Amino acid sequence: MILDKINNPDDLKKLSLDEMNALAAEMREFIIKKVNTIGGHLGPNLGIVEATIAMHYVFNSPVDKIVYDVSHQCYTHKMLTGRKEGFTDSSKYLKYTGYTAPEESAHDLFKVGHTSTSVSLATGVAKARDLKGEKGNVIALIGDGSLSGGEALEGLDNAADLNSNMIIVVNDNEMSIAENHGGLYKNLDELRNTNGQAQNNFFKTLGFDYLYVAEGNNVEKLIEAFKQVKDSTHPVVVHIRTLKGKGLEAAEQNKEAFHWILPGTLDKKEEPQATPAEDYNSITKNFILKHAKSDKTVIAVNAGTPGVFGFTPDFRKELGAQYTDVGIAEEHAVAYTSALAKSGAKPILHIMSSFVQRTYDQLSQDLALNNSPLTMLVYWGGISGADATHLCSFDMPLIGNIPNIVYLAPTNKEEYLAMLEYSFNQTEHPVAIRVPNIPLESTGVEDKTDYSIPNKFKVEHKGKKIAILGLGNFFNLAKDVREEIKEKLSIDATLINPKFITGIDEELLENLKKDHDLVITLEDGILNGGFGEKIASFYGNSSMKVLNFGGKKEFPDRVPVAQLYERYRLRKDLILEDVSKTLELATV
Amino acid sequence: MILDKINNPDDLKKLSLDEMNALAAEMREFIIKKVNTIGGHLGPNLGIVEATIAMHYVFNSPVDKIVYDVSHQCYTHKMLTGRKEGFTDSSKYLKYTGYTAPEESAHDLFKVGHTSTSVSLATGVAKARDLKGEKGNVIALIGDGSLSGGEALEGLDNAADLNSNMIIVVNDNEMSIAENHGGLYKNLDELRNTNGQAQNNFFKTLGFDYLYVAEGNNVEKLIEAFKQVKDSTHPVVVHIRTLKGKGLEAAEQNKEAFHWILPGTLDKKEEPQATPAEDYNSITKNFILKHAKSDKTVIAVNAGTPGVFGFTPDFRKELGAQYTDVGIAEEHAVAYTSALAKSGAKPILHIMSSFVQRTYDQLSQDLALNNSPLTMLVYWGGISGADATHLCSFDMPLIGNIPNIVYLAPTNKEEYLAMLEYSFNQTEHPVAIRVPNIPLESTGVEDKTDYSIPNKFKVEHKGKKIAILGLGNFFNLAKDVREEIKEKLSIDATLINPKFITGIDEELLENLKKDHDLVITLEDGILNGGFGEKIASFYGNSSMKVLNFGGKKEFPDRVPVAQLYERYRLRKDLILEDVSKTLELATV
Repeated sequence: MILDKINNPDDLKKLSLDEMNALAAEMREFIIKKVNTIGGHLGPNLGIVEATIAMHYVFNSPVDKIVYDVSHQCYTHKMLTGRKEGFTDSSKYLKYTGYTAPEESAHDLFKVGHTSTSVSLATGVAKARDLKGEKGNVIALIGDGSLSGGEALEGLDNAADLNSNMIIVVNDNEMSIAENHGGLYKNLDELRNTNGQAQNNFFKTLGFDYLYVAEGNNVEKLIEAFKQVKDSTHPVVVHIRTLKGKGLEAAEQNKEAFHWILPGTLDKKEEPQATPAEDYNSITKNFILKHAKSDKTVIAVNAGTPGVFGFTPDFRKELGAQYTDVGIAEEHAVAYTSALAKSGAKPILHIMSSFVQRTYDQLSQDLALNNSPLTMLVYWGGISGADATHLCSFDMPLIGNIPNIVYLAPTNKEEYLAMLEYSFNQTEHPVAIRVPNIPLESTGVEDKTDYSIPNKFKVEHKGKKIAILGLGNFFNLAKDVREEIKEKLSIDATLINPKFITGIDEELLENLKKDHDLVITLEDGILNGGFGEKIASFYGNSSMKVLNFGGKKEFPDRVPVAQLYERYRLRKDLILEDVSKTLELATV
Repeated sequence: MILDKINNPDDLKKLSLDEMNALAAEMREFIIKKVNTIGGHLGPNLGIVEATIAMHYVFNSPVDKIVYDVSHQCYTHKMLTGRKEGFTDSSKYLKYTGYTAPEESAHDLFKVGHTSTSVSLATGVAKARDLKGEKGNVIALIGDGSLSGGEALEGLDNAADLNSNMIIVVNDNEMSIAENHGGLYKNLDELRNTNGQAQNNFFKTLGFDYLYVAEGNNVEKLIEAFKQVKDSTHPVVVHIRTLKGKGLEAAEQNKEAFHWILPGTLDKKEEPQATPAEDYNSITKNFILKHAKSDKTVIAVNAGTPGVFGFTPDFRKELGAQYTDVGIAEEHAVAYTSALAKSGAKPILHIMSSFVQRTYDQLSQDLALNNSPLTMLVYWGGISGADATHLCSFDMPLIGNIPNIVYLAPTNKEEYLAMLEYSFNQTEHPVAIRVPNIPLESTGVEDKTDYSIPNKFKVEHKGKKIAILGLGNFFNLAKDVREEIKEKLSIDATLINPKFITGIDEELLENLKKDHDLVITLEDGILNGGFGEKIASFYGNSSMKVLNFGGKKEFPDRVPVAQLYERYRLRKDLILEDVSKTLELATV
């Protein structure tokens, strides 16, 4: 096996072209096997094997510096830079992250997981090189889908101003996770269709030199192109056309489904299907379809990642003009939907918690300041064992401290539906709903709460001495804690479902003072700047004691959620310990 | 006077070309007189007079919808849409805001003050029109300087995809507040120099139809152009070349200084000069120059608005390659400087509090997650009487809840310098410093604090019973409150200068429990998600009482700061009342 001989990029430089092609085939097999075993990004990694080999063959990493965008296409890079065991040895599959990670290797410059960052970062790397009077190539590798993000576009505008070496490799596989959208993509089309010769050339208008490589999965052609731009003294774009999913027929055919796959996907006889069971995604989709049919101004919007919301190609097609995927462009998505809402349409914006933070100013200025009645659904919010680049525990402090936005945390199907209806029928405020990130629960009883009454918490059980506020995903934990307290401390605690993240029910909290000594808050996100601290501040001038439970301000990296719960004391037994200590009570 | 006859845009349509030209001259005089009286945006408004007249002559606002970018160029628009008294009657100068404001007029679609929003918003307006089956033109008016912002670029990419009417007027006055930077601007140059005929055309590559108007201050030519694109059935860019400061020689000559002026500027014999007295800006500039001379990797960076930091053209020239203004591109600015820092250079990023929020994801992912040792200076932070679009009271919750960033709040010159030196010489963390937004104070004694010890608060006076934590700008208020408490309650309170916004000194707070009953926190920003709530949460399990003082989560619009201080009880007498009530003490 040729890979046996490769321990760092220098070893690659000794290979013949035939050997490199054989190596590509070997690595492709390892990628497929690993991803099918533990899950991960398949399509992007299969498409970039040859380009990665060619880059490492032509350039001298880490003296020459390669900056990856998103970095979900770095598997070949990892194999070539001393980390092949993470792919060849199944017992070490989890040893390395799925993204570039400087702590693993000098060949990885940044910890990256969100898109559209590479050009800006590479511009800084190049400028530092120039200031230090050093030499060397700086290469940004960016996918076509990532180009539409504001940071990438700002970066391109500025990179073009560099008066020194800077090589931007545009990996054009003709799609983002799903298909691309926007004028830029029509230009990429035109460039591909003219072998890079089209008169209109987005990159040239910005001042870049430009080179097109039609065969972006051909090692020889790529080496030729990279040699041509190596040591360039000004910014240049190398536009390479690659095949997403290359080498695996199913992935080549169905690029969207095979962008990221679950373990075992390739062993199934049929192509992956969304589970037919009812869940929050299916409820949401049914809600949208129902309203879209009776009201032509209803429109579902997202900024890439439609799969997160279960927006299948069929669903998107059914909505037609009543659906917009703006592509990776979260800032635009918020401003666009705010204007839609302000103009009397009924937009529903869908966004993953980790990506909400790509658009704070638009949430504040375009949306909240204008009080546009947008409905925004935030997905996957909560403490998780995810990679540090994809944490979803910051959305509550972020959205929660912006004026005018009502941020709601339902705990079951009926509440979720009632909140959706409320948001959809009101014209006063932007309403965000944190879609529960727990298995669907249903009470079977319609929720008739009037959510236009702001910050009205719901008392689920009236007890005394201790009140437990279980927000959203953690309402069930609050129920468990109540049981634990009852059993171990013989206290009949009050159980509260706050529902509102963005405000506090002062009347209710005031009333608790009469027959309660302790309030416990539970929130599925970081504590800092979140929900519980506001309760603590409210009670600051009283003798009420408050215990806030939630995540710590940190970037845990693939730490199992059970371990995080233990660290944050988010377990009924640990909470009981803290309660007992605070009340100076012994457990029964 | 022709303006007498103009009460709405319909009246304009009855005028002859000569009358419109005369009207332009009249309005220009009113703008100059008003801005010289109360201060405001001068250059941008003078440059757009003719284009505004032509737009309202050709289009039918508010059926046709004009979306302004930044909207600091809306004065002529306001005069033409029923609000001329705000310019002709000096007693009503303050009646209308300096930005578009839907509450004032149906001709204003959005409350806007930050840049780069118009194209995205207009795309939403156009899409709502299409969904509703309505007709009409949607026009976005955007300055060349605003084009470089990520939201504008995302918006352009998406707007080009609209299959219906959308007119983007690019008001090209060849500069942002200061000069422009980036590849895009070289293309605008090329387009101007070729009368719009250059082969490389940024807008055409995105798919827009394109029309160039060389005489962007010629009403007749503009009317002709707008008539040509009116009712266009697809997205079109009208690129107009205007003269910033048009009609006022000083403003035409010195576009940067006359972008926004203070009252009375035009009455002075010489052009406005930076005050020579020492202040935080001059201290910062001296710090940068000193280090830049001895270390070629020191580099000052900002994203537009160099005037906020006192970065005069001379200063910028002196730094040469050790200075980058990335233009309006805050996301790029953070990623770029993070990469500079990670690559061993010494960047200092300068940003105004209100614009920090344009780059949350980059602060979190590109910067904090990578722990790049960037020095970031945040200016103008604090509760102010500013327009709702330019509030500076949200930076502490925003930055303060991101892991890894150390956010510091100095209270005087010596602390500020010591923090700058600390930040500059460490390689562990991103360090942000909230530049004091109060007159310079100096102790005359060098601050030798070791700021590498995290979250170490400074006890300025050790007393008992009550401890007052005065953060940054509000340290002086804390001193006053201490005096008031001493005088009125005969209590010798403890005075603490926290210095660290991003963490709490648990040891010190724990110790306070021994001989204190009440902790007061004072912060110059909104309370929600800020500093004080964390102190309240810390003491939640104890009998320590906590009173948090700071701003409320809201968007106050030009409310005098004294009134806000009263509303938020940020006065020593009001704080004393709350303290007395909490301690159940009568005042002496």
